[in-house]
Amino acid sequence: MSVPPPKGSQDLIEGLRDKLRQFAAEREWDQFHSPKNLAMALSVEAAELLEHVQWLSDAESAALAPEKRVKIREELADVLLYLIRLADKLDVNLATAAADKLSVNAQKYPVQKARGSSKKYTEL
Amino acid sequence: MSVPPPKGSQDLIEGLRDKLRQFAAEREWDQFHSPKNLAMALSVEAAELLEHVQWLSDAESAALAPEKRVKIREELADVLLYLIRLADKLDVNLATAAADKLSVNAQKYPVQKARGSSKKYTEL
Amino acid sequence: MSVPPPKGSQDLIEGLRDKLRQFAAEREWDQFHSPKNLAMALSVEAAELLEHVQWLSDAESAALAPEKRVKIREELADVLLYLIRLADKLDVNLATAAADKLSVNAQKYPVQKARGSSKKYTEL
Amino acid sequence: MSVPPPKGSQDLIEGLRDKLRQFAAEREWDQFHSPKNLAMALSVEAAELLEHVQWLSDAESAALAPEKRVKIREELADVLLYLIRLADKLDVNLATAAADKLSVNAQKYPVQKARGSSKKYTEL
Repeated sequence: MSVPPPKGSQDLIEGLRDKLRQFAAEREWDQFHSPKNLAMALSVEAAELLEHVQWLSDAESAALAPEKRVKIREELADVLLYLIRLADKLDVNLATAAADKLSVNAQKYPVQKARGSSKKYTEL
Repeated sequence: MSVPPPKGSQDLIEGLRDKLRQFAAEREWDQFHSPKNLAMALSVEAAELLEHVQWLSDAESAALAPEKRVKIREELADVLLYLIRLADKLDVNLATAAADKLSVNAQKYPVQKARGSSKKYTEL
Repeated sequence: MSVPPPKGSQDLIEGLRDKLRQFAAEREWDQFHSPKNLAMALSVEAAELLEHVQWLSDAESAALAPEKRVKIREELADVLLYLIRLADKLDVNLATAAADKLSVNAQKYPVQKARGSSKKYTEL
Repeated sequence: MSVPPPKGSQDLIEGLRDKLRQFAAEREWDQFHSPKNLAMALSVEAAELLEHVQWLSDAESAALAPEKRVKIREELADVLLYLIRLADKLDVNLATAAADKLSVNAQKYPVQKARGSSKKYTEL
């Protein structure tokens, strides 16, 4: 079922992964970076992202003030960095995992059934 | 302060971004994909990841049973897919954002002060 | 299946519910307090709680420094306040709901099967 | 700054706290119930709540289908149960903590400044 990721695709992820490894090694942070702790950190960063949009309307969330956009950009980066670090610790190839998941989603949500609906696949 | 991302780095992100655009377009899902809703979905996926490790010890979370690892790999993929979709809707370049954030983190957590400590930079 | 809540039990919840109603009315905040937005706010507060313990060991999380305990106490309060507000908007009686859920949990996790195990009921 | 909770208010919380203590003791679950793990469980339950409303409009989230409302009622109960269990482990009186936080909020959000605004107090 594994779909090959687009060519050259691992460059970004692998580059950041290596920098994060070095970053943690220099600070002796591997002792804190259990998958459990990293999963918590990821969840906390995702919630910080959420905090920026929680009281906005959908339309407002799509037309953010520049200073808010700067902060959200930082939260998006934090999520990506923890995600890469966690995947590294679990020895998961994110590029392949994402390509596989897209295939699964295409099966769960066939166009004919899912069009215009926000229902979960179990309710379609 | 912007650091150039590693060469060729956008391939994976851009490839997935384009597939997600097509996926949503075919299903007429753009109506649901406000940044607000996507931030919620990201947070929900991060929590599903968390659920898999919540009662484990740190050591157990680093030595997962194969069937649990398969599920966690799917959740990691879900987080990446929503992250890319959200960044696309906000017109944020994830590669550049992550590189910038790493520079910020290096300043917030200088090696001498942060070594061996899990404290937040505001408490170092 | 509904189990009566302990006598007099609604006092606290109802008292806080009424204060929160007044608080929101005075500030004209009902326009923001959709169940969707309140569920987001609850989730954000829960993550702020999590942030305080994310890098701690289990033992450290049980022996918090006094200033950290003060902050966590505030986050616990925030979670309770949003929970009560959300339940009010959904017309859910929290006392009865909690008593019912305890009964459900007792059936899902019979003592003989669940003793000493952290597995989910679906895996017991 | 501590405001007395309404009279008789601890009945519900204390009743559920005692039942949860017994529930955990019978199943030998105290070994898993570190504040850290309980904070994770609380966060996971809050996200499950969120999942039920994530693709709904604000109006739809206020007019839930009966079967969805039943599920959300269960999630609300789960959040309350973990919240009480966590507060117990941290020796925090939720009733007093909530009353205190309401006072703090009243100061952070004076009616004149906060009326009709969803801004955070730091931005008012």
